[in-house]
Amino acid sequence: MERHLDQDLDRIRQELLRMAGLVEAMIGDAMQALLQRDWDKASGVIIADKGIDVLEKEIDEACHTVLVRHQPTAVDLRFLVAVMKINNDLERMGDSAVNIAEAVEVLNQEPPLKPYIDLPRMAEKVREMVRHSLDAFVARDTRTAISVCAADDEIDGFYHQLFRELLTYMIEDPKNVSRALHLLLISRNLERIADHATNIAEDVIYYVEGRDIRHSAGVPGLASGGVKAGV
Amino acid sequence: MERHLDQDLDRIRQELLRMAGLVEAMIGDAMQALLQRDWDKASGVIIADKGIDVLEKEIDEACHTVLVRHQPTAVDLRFLVAVMKINNDLERMGDSAVNIAEAVEVLNQEPPLKPYIDLPRMAEKVREMVRHSLDAFVARDTRTAISVCAADDEIDGFYHQLFRELLTYMIEDPKNVSRALHLLLISRNLERIADHATNIAEDVIYYVEGRDIRHSAGVPGLASGGVKAGV
Repeated sequence: MERHLDQDLDRIRQELLRMAGLVEAMIGDAMQALLQRDWDKASGVIIADKGIDVLEKEIDEACHTVLVRHQPTAVDLRFLVAVMKINNDLERMGDSAVNIAEAVEVLNQEPPLKPYIDLPRMAEKVREMVRHSLDAFVARDTRTAISVCAADDEIDGFYHQLFRELLTYMIEDPKNVSRALHLLLISRNLERIADHATNIAEDVIYYVEGRDIRHSAGVPGLASGGVKAGV
Repeated sequence: MERHLDQDLDRIRQELLRMAGLVEAMIGDAMQALLQRDWDKASGVIIADKGIDVLEKEIDEACHTVLVRHQPTAVDLRFLVAVMKINNDLERMGDSAVNIAEAVEVLNQEPPLKPYIDLPRMAEKVREMVRHSLDAFVARDTRTAISVCAADDEIDGFYHQLFRELLTYMIEDPKNVSRALHLLLISRNLERIADHATNIAEDVIYYVEGRDIRHSAGVPGLASGGVKAGV
């Protein structure tokens, strides 16, 4: 029985990592589609998302099956709860990659508004966060998970800087508006992907240590009250 | 034992509904802040979100405790999985309400760009979706849940119409750019809230019927393969 549980959990872990690899490739391809003005890469991302949606359902189903069959406790239960959350975050990252690819399809119909400098740097940093959040999950490494959470501030900085810069472009010349707006959509979606990577890092800490660090700044200790006490 | 489980589940249900009520009020207040140019309402939404973050953690903790203590199966297990997902969607709706309130704080520093007609209609429809998704959960009513999923297309229609209209404003006059952009942010966040209501409606169907209808258009039958078969 126990060996079966371990096998089932290992299979789920592998499928989740496969999904993570596909999502990371989608983010990379969506940005390559922009930088290389590659139409095929953009449409490839949109097609790939169908596979991600299927994988999400399969992984969720697999978790439910294990919950019902083995009724795991303690770290195994926390693992499954973490997987269900990470699964959801990965699927939403895929949606963001699609949003980027769709914006690229509009952008590639006109000459570039300006040389892309900050956007690829931001994208590289975001992909690193995604990779590290999954590395932390595999290695049960809370230190790496904490570094992912810390990196999120840098991404917010990139976004706000790009927002101001692109707003200026829009105000300068009406011909810039549509392109600047679509570049803004791309940076917004990168920022959302970073948020999901941060969620994953937080789930890793919960899974490994059994404590929930979400929203912990400013509300220390409060999570232990209320409903928890009543159940 | 069984009676304790029922009591615990009922307590979780009540807390989730309390959270849903607070989130719905935040969405309403964020829109009132825009329409009535009410600075206090906008900052009230931002403050209220702290309480939502705490509630989310408490409800999650309560679900974990019940999973460990009672090891529920079948419909009770599906209920808990659905609650954890709905909980997450409600928290993200709260984040979107905050994004709206922050945009309103910028918008209220200038005269209105134009009379608001479609945006309040869109917001009303979105709040209705949120309310109905929770009604469906309480009444275990899949018909209402399906109607929520169907309403999402109408919201997407609103968003694309507003996108085109606001883009035109931006191109017409550079003085419009900042305001139009912030109105676009608001409509984008309303559209995201509708997506979360749709997620909740899908979770209700899973909870009641034990079937997963996410992403079901276009990939019929595929969800039963892969990992599921292997576990």
